[in-house]
Amino acid sequence: MPEKKQLSLEPYKGTRDFYPRGQFAQDYIFGVWKKIAEGYGYLRYDASILEETDLYRAKSGEEIINEQTYSFIDRGGRDVTIRPEMTPTVARMVAQKRKELTFPIRWYSIPNLFRYERPQRGRLREHWQLNVDMFGVESLEADLEMVNIAGDIMKVFGAKDEQYEIRVNSRRFLNFLLNDFFQLTPEQAHKVSKLFDRMHKISGGEFQSQLLEITGDKDRSETLISISRARSLEELPEAVKAHESAAELMAFINKLKNQGLSNVRFEISVVRGFDYYTGMVFEVFDANPVNPRAIFGGGRYDDLVGIFGVERVPGIGFGMGDVVIKDFLETYQLLPEYKPSVDLYIAPFDALYIDAANELAKYLRVQGLNVAMDLTDRQVSKKVKAADKEQIPFVVVIGEQEVTSGKFKVKNFKDSKEFEVSKEEIVGLIRK
Amino acid sequence: MPEKKQLSLEPYKGTRDFYPRGQFAQDYIFGVWKKIAEGYGYLRYDASILEETDLYRAKSGEEIINEQTYSFIDRGGRDVTIRPEMTPTVARMVAQKRKELTFPIRWYSIPNLFRYERPQRGRLREHWQLNVDMFGVESLEADLEMVNIAGDIMKVFGAKDEQYEIRVNSRRFLNFLLNDFFQLTPEQAHKVSKLFDRMHKISGGEFQSQLLEITGDKDRSETLISISRARSLEELPEAVKAHESAAELMAFINKLKNQGLSNVRFEISVVRGFDYYTGMVFEVFDANPVNPRAIFGGGRYDDLVGIFGVERVPGIGFGMGDVVIKDFLETYQLLPEYKPSVDLYIAPFDALYIDAANELAKYLRVQGLNVAMDLTDRQVSKKVKAADKEQIPFVVVIGEQEVTSGKFKVKNFKDSKEFEVSKEEIVGLIRK
Repeated sequence: MPEKKQLSLEPYKGTRDFYPRGQFAQDYIFGVWKKIAEGYGYLRYDASILEETDLYRAKSGEEIINEQTYSFIDRGGRDVTIRPEMTPTVARMVAQKRKELTFPIRWYSIPNLFRYERPQRGRLREHWQLNVDMFGVESLEADLEMVNIAGDIMKVFGAKDEQYEIRVNSRRFLNFLLNDFFQLTPEQAHKVSKLFDRMHKISGGEFQSQLLEITGDKDRSETLISISRARSLEELPEAVKAHESAAELMAFINKLKNQGLSNVRFEISVVRGFDYYTGMVFEVFDANPVNPRAIFGGGRYDDLVGIFGVERVPGIGFGMGDVVIKDFLETYQLLPEYKPSVDLYIAPFDALYIDAANELAKYLRVQGLNVAMDLTDRQVSKKVKAADKEQIPFVVVIGEQEVTSGKFKVKNFKDSKEFEVSKEEIVGLIRK
Repeated sequence: MPEKKQLSLEPYKGTRDFYPRGQFAQDYIFGVWKKIAEGYGYLRYDASILEETDLYRAKSGEEIINEQTYSFIDRGGRDVTIRPEMTPTVARMVAQKRKELTFPIRWYSIPNLFRYERPQRGRLREHWQLNVDMFGVESLEADLEMVNIAGDIMKVFGAKDEQYEIRVNSRRFLNFLLNDFFQLTPEQAHKVSKLFDRMHKISGGEFQSQLLEITGDKDRSETLISISRARSLEELPEAVKAHESAAELMAFINKLKNQGLSNVRFEISVVRGFDYYTGMVFEVFDANPVNPRAIFGGGRYDDLVGIFGVERVPGIGFGMGDVVIKDFLETYQLLPEYKPSVDLYIAPFDALYIDAANELAKYLRVQGLNVAMDLTDRQVSKKVKAADKEQIPFVVVIGEQEVTSGKFKVKNFKDSKEFEVSKEEIVGLIRK
């Protein structure tokens, strides 16, 4: 018989176990997402984590589908993929029920996504991602709302304006710039886009030499470099900013500033990886000089629903991953302190008092308290210690005296104060 | 060029799309699960949906791993599986951090699970499942708590005692019965267990003929049939119920009745599919004669953590799937009516008033209301109609008069009443 292989205790490579303390941070992040998305009137939706692979072949971009998906053939011969992003799914869902749905649609979801990448800081092989999308509104007002939602989330997380930047660009402007202004071939334009997208991950020298290689032209390459450094549309050449797509973008950024987003600005390197974007694109960028990088972003995709062979439905949205934002919140110490969901720990003095303890617990649960019971046969002092170690705020011991008198000594671990109260009074004591 | 295949609008076979109305039911179910699990002091945890396949080879049961998993080889050559159940994962997590964790552990989770099965009523290829588990307590008190949690969930869902039954058995008792009392070989005993597990899915005749075939003995087969019909341990042969494992089970069931679970009873066919159970097992069974079947269940698995090569940690838990419970709730009309998360719809009279509408929305969101804005350029009457169709409870139109006066006409769709109020009064009006 072959030697039995020892089972691994670790989670699968690039994935995470959420023990209750980690889950607490997760729930906090999801809670802020839900609050803001619903605050703006977005309704929650969801779908299966498995989709047919064809869904991503159409528009997600070649790099993702060829190198980064978890794809396989199922037992029925179907080519399926664990979703790497949610936008194709939501577009499919909108296309499917477009006749019954009331437009405009405001939807959000917090799906789990998988990508086969080299695990590194802020990047794992799975993450959870808030997706906020609006369908059926083509006007700039929708674009403004989307960036405002992103900004509100950052504010509610407690991020200060100087800790991040909202960088805005437009695919329409980028197309004008590369195709019309610089007269690049479609292939060159695509390569320059992808290079912009990588700009903050490579050195300045590398960026410049690749730009020269793609354009094959020193003049154009140098103008592109100077544009890549622009922090405002004002800095661009006159002939560029005179174009209608630049004027629109400028008006858009000014409006955002007027709406209270002081840290918004133009940047040409904001391209976003997906091929489906058609209009405004934006990125929230960590301003920390030690770890500058995009935290999240999104944009307008007016042609995505149409790929399902149905009429065109304009769409706009963004995605915000839990791994990157958690890293950001930890960096700036913005995560709240752990607090277990348990309010009170009941420690029966010994097995004789378990029934009485159960009755008390039952009463308190009906009142809405979260109550855990110690069912072990260890010493009562150890039971109390365990509750303290678990950071449960209150403990009560149930013994002969409590059963007889109907009075309970409830101890608050925080200040070690003890209160002798009736079961009816326990609720008020703990709520306070 | 080959003709381009039309992209499918459907979700992947055996999976579901959750549009907001479906998601509402889902959120309701998850909310009840969370409330009860946390009420009993259980802390939430989670883990990746992908695990190494070896994790399931050890204890999930051969049928599952050979025929029902979504398994594949990843780009790095690892054999991975989309989890078909959560118990192996939680056992792995407990084994991994057993030195740091405070025992006993009370944890719950609501994971998404996948099984490759023929989709049918109450069974899809994916579902979400509440998992409630306790580690580190071997006493019957833990078993009692587990069944009480299951019963509380059914009560909070509004299920009446006569609509379901809690059926209890014990692997220890079953082992005594098959191995010691009937003197079956291990292979025969295993086959009889599996037959019991399928008992309510096959005809009585098929059950009897298979039992005869396995035991090869008319006497034993007939006694087993009569035991399979017993609705209480009292009905069993004297020599059987005299055994210590039967007495324990009887005491357990009586205690549950005393704790207020009137619809609990013994049934030998409650085996549960997983190989890892070692003690008490239970099943909540739909009493509807038209669709009798197990809704959910669980049991004690004291040796599961030990398979990771660490010291033994007793465990007990149950899993409750969303597909089956939703079907049950629909059957008995227990699902709440749909209500969108949006409180108020703001309809600007035309584009001129979008800024004013945005300001009002901003104010109301800070006060905690969920407010959607109509950003289309359609007629205002169509905007109002859209809100009604979406079942949003309140609507307000913003035009010249509202901007000038600071008074807003808020309409309640339910009774068509309109109130003219200041922005400060809107919150109170809607909350009421």
